Amino acid sequence: MTEPLLGAAARQAPFESPSREPPRRRGTAPGGHVCRGRKRRVEAFSCPFLFLFRGVEASPRRRLIPLPVWGGAWHTGAPRSERRDFSSFVARTNTCGELRSAHVGQKVTLYGWIQYQRQGLFLVLRDFQGLTQIIIPQDEARSHVKELLSSAPVESVVRVTGVVSLRPPGQENPKMPTGDIEVKVETAEVLNSCKKLPFEIKDFIKKSEALRMQYRYLDLRSFQLQYNLRLRSQIVMRMREYLCNLHGFVDVETPTLFKRTPGGAKEFLVPSREAGKFYSLPQSPQQFKQLLMVGGLDRYFQVARCYRDEGSRPDRQPEFTQIDIEMSFVDQNGIQRLIEGLLQYSWPEDRSPVTTPFPSMTYEEALADYGTDKPDTRFGMKIVDISDFSQRLGIHFVQNALSYPHGTVKAICIPQGMVSDIFTYSVRFMPDGSLKSLLTKFLGQEQQSELIQELKMQVDDVVLLAAGEHKRVCSALGSLRLESADLLEAAGLVLRDPAVFHFLWVVDFPLFLPKEDNPTELESAHHPFTAPHPSDTSLLYSDPTKVRSQHYDLVLNGSEVGGGSIRIHNAELQRFVLEKVLKEDSEVLSHLLDALEFGAPPHGGIALGLDRLISLIVGAQSIRDVIAFPKSFRGRDLMGNAPDYVTAEELEPYHIQVSWPVAEAEAKKN
Amino acid sequence: MTEPLLGAAARQAPFESPSREPPRRRGTAPGGHVCRGRKRRVEAFSCPFLFLFRGVEASPRRRLIPLPVWGGAWHTGAPRSERRDFSSFVARTNTCGELRSAHVGQKVTLYGWIQYQRQGLFLVLRDFQGLTQIIIPQDEARSHVKELLSSAPVESVVRVTGVVSLRPPGQENPKMPTGDIEVKVETAEVLNSCKKLPFEIKDFIKKSEALRMQYRYLDLRSFQLQYNLRLRSQIVMRMREYLCNLHGFVDVETPTLFKRTPGGAKEFLVPSREAGKFYSLPQSPQQFKQLLMVGGLDRYFQVARCYRDEGSRPDRQPEFTQIDIEMSFVDQNGIQRLIEGLLQYSWPEDRSPVTTPFPSMTYEEALADYGTDKPDTRFGMKIVDISDFSQRLGIHFVQNALSYPHGTVKAICIPQGMVSDIFTYSVRFMPDGSLKSLLTKFLGQEQQSELIQELKMQVDDVVLLAAGEHKRVCSALGSLRLESADLLEAAGLVLRDPAVFHFLWVVDFPLFLPKEDNPTELESAHHPFTAPHPSDTSLLYSDPTKVRSQHYDLVLNGSEVGGGSIRIHNAELQRFVLEKVLKEDSEVLSHLLDALEFGAPPHGGIALGLDRLISLIVGAQSIRDVIAFPKSFRGRDLMGNAPDYVTAEELEPYHIQVSWPVAEAEAKKN
Repeated sequence: MTEPLLGAAARQAPFESPSREPPRRRGTAPGGHVCRGRKRRVEAFSCPFLFLFRGVEASPRRRLIPLPVWGGAWHTGAPRSERRDFSSFVARTNTCGELRSAHVGQKVTLYGWIQYQRQGLFLVLRDFQGLTQIIIPQDEARSHVKELLSSAPVESVVRVTGVVSLRPPGQENPKMPTGDIEVKVETAEVLNSCKKLPFEIKDFIKKSEALRMQYRYLDLRSFQLQYNLRLRSQIVMRMREYLCNLHGFVDVETPTLFKRTPGGAKEFLVPSREAGKFYSLPQSPQQFKQLLMVGGLDRYFQVARCYRDEGSRPDRQPEFTQIDIEMSFVDQNGIQRLIEGLLQYSWPEDRSPVTTPFPSMTYEEALADYGTDKPDTRFGMKIVDISDFSQRLGIHFVQNALSYPHGTVKAICIPQGMVSDIFTYSVRFMPDGSLKSLLTKFLGQEQQSELIQELKMQVDDVVLLAAGEHKRVCSALGSLRLESADLLEAAGLVLRDPAVFHFLWVVDFPLFLPKEDNPTELESAHHPFTAPHPSDTSLLYSDPTKVRSQHYDLVLNGSEVGGGSIRIHNAELQRFVLEKVLKEDSEVLSHLLDALEFGAPPHGGIALGLDRLISLIVGAQSIRDVIAFPKSFRGRDLMGNAPDYVTAEELEPYHIQVSWPVAEAEAKKN
Repeated sequence: MTEPLLGAAARQAPFESPSREPPRRRGTAPGGHVCRGRKRRVEAFSCPFLFLFRGVEASPRRRLIPLPVWGGAWHTGAPRSERRDFSSFVARTNTCGELRSAHVGQKVTLYGWIQYQRQGLFLVLRDFQGLTQIIIPQDEARSHVKELLSSAPVESVVRVTGVVSLRPPGQENPKMPTGDIEVKVETAEVLNSCKKLPFEIKDFIKKSEALRMQYRYLDLRSFQLQYNLRLRSQIVMRMREYLCNLHGFVDVETPTLFKRTPGGAKEFLVPSREAGKFYSLPQSPQQFKQLLMVGGLDRYFQVARCYRDEGSRPDRQPEFTQIDIEMSFVDQNGIQRLIEGLLQYSWPEDRSPVTTPFPSMTYEEALADYGTDKPDTRFGMKIVDISDFSQRLGIHFVQNALSYPHGTVKAICIPQGMVSDIFTYSVRFMPDGSLKSLLTKFLGQEQQSELIQELKMQVDDVVLLAAGEHKRVCSALGSLRLESADLLEAAGLVLRDPAVFHFLWVVDFPLFLPKEDNPTELESAHHPFTAPHPSDTSLLYSDPTKVRSQHYDLVLNGSEVGGGSIRIHNAELQRFVLEKVLKEDSEVLSHLLDALEFGAPPHGGIALGLDRLISLIVGAQSIRDVIAFPKSFRGRDLMGNAPDYVTAEELEPYHIQVSWPVAEAEAKKN
């Protein structure tokens, strides 16, 4: 019941985490989901005074962005000045998306898949770049060519050589980039015949995702996946050009076989040949990139493979990719300008352009106005504090809520909220000028007017109210705000234009948070290497809970797409944070503390979640749609059947054996 | 004793191997080294008739290539048309390698490390780009600046702001790119003080490699490692430009959490949360790249992280990087031309240029002439067959050797071999015109002349002879050829100019080889997806041992730096190879066989070993010198101490436990 409160955005992963951080217990929310660090989920129903909410079905919040037509897309996003040669080193003269009326009369050789074939008269040949209509010869002399092409099953691979001709007048297809021409075949060869497919290709998209994953190599032939993977490649290439060629960054590969983070329960283990010793697959290159700065590399980046073992989580992958960046002698402003330039430079030409600088908001503002640290700023419906107004109502349970520390009453006004009839218990602004709500019995005429004015209500608007502790109330209303947006869009209103991209910096996070299970102790809000805000350094020794950090998150359309910080470069400060504030054993990080003592420069960095970023750009429903061979949400490769059983002999060199769960063992084997 | 026979080249890894290949036992040579696939090491001493060889110390075969001076190097290898801004987004105005006399009079801000400080008068500031001399102010008004800079220990990080001035006449340093100027400091700040180093930095290079690995972040500050890592980054960037921007390749990331190759004893395992089920870290993206071709991606590349668990091996790394490439509709020639263009395009400007096309040699030729499948063609000393001559000598044990199948007598002539006196038992050409050898008692005057003529001997040359089975004799002489080159170079002759780069294609490998332990059965010489040579396809059904493959290796200066093949794209042929020739269970590859049936295009590819390639280009002794954080030869990270012990609780979610070796358990724990 509480689950729908958490939209896809809220389930996102953090993009930067230390590969070795002090032990930290992860809080578990009632819904059973493990929370990340201390940016905890707040449950709506634990608010003492949250009304007007009814469980709703989570509906997909993203819509597919209309894509360019097949054959027109591949050159977009490419470096502007360069022309790619897709036919170098092979025998084809052209791709299937290239031919235009200017080619008429040329003899061409194409290679591709038979998309469609009709009555031995013509076929449509497809490759990664587009479609070309192929005319099958009907003369006796080429009967073998006709025989060959007519009998080859759909999805067979063929070579055809022939002459480009204009289509007969009236038969042009303006929707097809090659729609003016056709190729009259002279010779042809079936390079590989396709056996009967397990399903009709045209129905494939409607099949279960499991089937698509099992036959991923067929799904990859679809326009959408070709587009997604090619755009991803091109965006990353542009990012590399910006970082490496324009700004002197060094692409450094860091190890993925490292050492277990104490308490890093989300790290995959890799048994070594030394009995009892394990590598681990790091969640990020955090330690290595800081050590590279100590090593004087000055500007590092890496398109880094990272690993996180979270068991079954929707829209997460056990391995994922981040654009990992670290710089020496930089401040928060420097990193933010760098990233803005990076995104602007690599942004695909067929998307609405990115304007810089991105707006910035403090964590406190984001929470107060949007009830989340990753606000979707594409639409309003901001949270309004109506504590003063509510105080005056004299309703007992409202006043009770306000009497607690940080007690507050807040509201969001949902414009046109009445188009959706699910807000049964909300305050509605009726056409007759009155408010309709279970609350109205508490509201006099004057108070109704006051509320309408305070919230700038219009006819047909709906207001949701919540009272209770500030953070919880904000979080609850923030979730309701997103759910309401879904509902309004499901009812036909457009709130969030999928073609619009709203980037936002969120800054000034708290450096520490009370531990969920023991609020007298503190833990890092992000990771223990984050530097305190320069104005708050002295508070570190007096009231660490008040210290803001130099952490920054990058948010796109309500999803966290990046995060980073200025790091602690002073060994003494780092040791104080670890030992005195976090009460951790600093011994496990001795190499990093050592390194800070040997002339570590001031440094900072960021990591962008590439899978998420690309999925937002292409408007994909899931990050699985921008990954060539994704795992299922249970971490399985359905095509190759991984993970799989291995024999006891194969485990021997690693000095491990399987501890079969007594009852489950047999069941799992079957 | 046999160890020195295997040079560094012979210990190299193959660069392309299937991530899932049929079970294969690896042969183990007497020296204890596991052989790769079936390109077996041949032991010199098992030749029935190998004389003149005595064990020699292996000497380093590579010499350090002279590098450009500090500060002059970073721009080389960069894209020619672009200018990098190393000072964007930070407060410095310049790097420490940039200032010239043209900057005189400018106020600059530099950040860097104190390389050297003298008597409170001046210091040398260093960053990744070079060195700048800083003049410490001596006037009373700036006594605090003097105090600050004079007392900061070496390797402390400082900011200095001051004015660029010409050095006083006669004090210029022409060896330093910034040697004409100095910066007169006005303000300064010590950003981080360096505590006493565990050793003198200048002696660091002489310290043990273990110490350098433990303090890798200090070693990274050295000119050599900065140069290596930056050049690596730039070469890879150029490769990406060539592949992605010029030739339409798509950079696709493939999973590293996959499935155990049956019998893939070199694959690291990763326990999953499903009891008894394991992922494995693949040795290469072989299967995925073939599936991408089936998926119509057409041109794939990836700078791919690969994994191989070989226990302790010198100059190997458990994780390494390959430039992984696959193309559809391509033949052997297409791939070779692609790679030649790639290397030419990405080759650093400060190295002697690469000329294309690279020469090509069949496997049989390479073996017969150089005794190896990775000939170092920078020098001659080719193997000469003197079987006919030897036959006529009438020496019993020679004739005996010749009477066996493939029996042969071969020789190499070592020009100037007498400069080294270790070839005690060789045939020497004495200044008096005679030959001196233990063999001479068998040789008449006429036969001596004949031998001199046959081998084109000059005075002071030394000839090494071997008799026995063709392959073994060739391999033995091939090893001796390399050892002899080492010895000659140790004696002062230059045979292999380290500044010269000899690329070579080796082609026409056998497709199958008899299994070492059961020669009546066959195994793949490379991997089971390799296509047979088109002219030999029919032999597949009659005499598979005679079938040549469409595999090709790329060799650079005697090291294998790449390998690839045209693949089998026909499911029936692939099934025949797996089931009938290799007698494997094809079920484990069912997804790949399925994929081939659904319209797989003809395709082929290659993988370049990036670590090895870069190490050859920069003239590094070890691939560890071109990797930021390498593991030791025992697979350990000496800086962070990985792998490490984990608790039994941490193993629980993975349903595994450690099987402690009874006796070793305690010892290892201590």
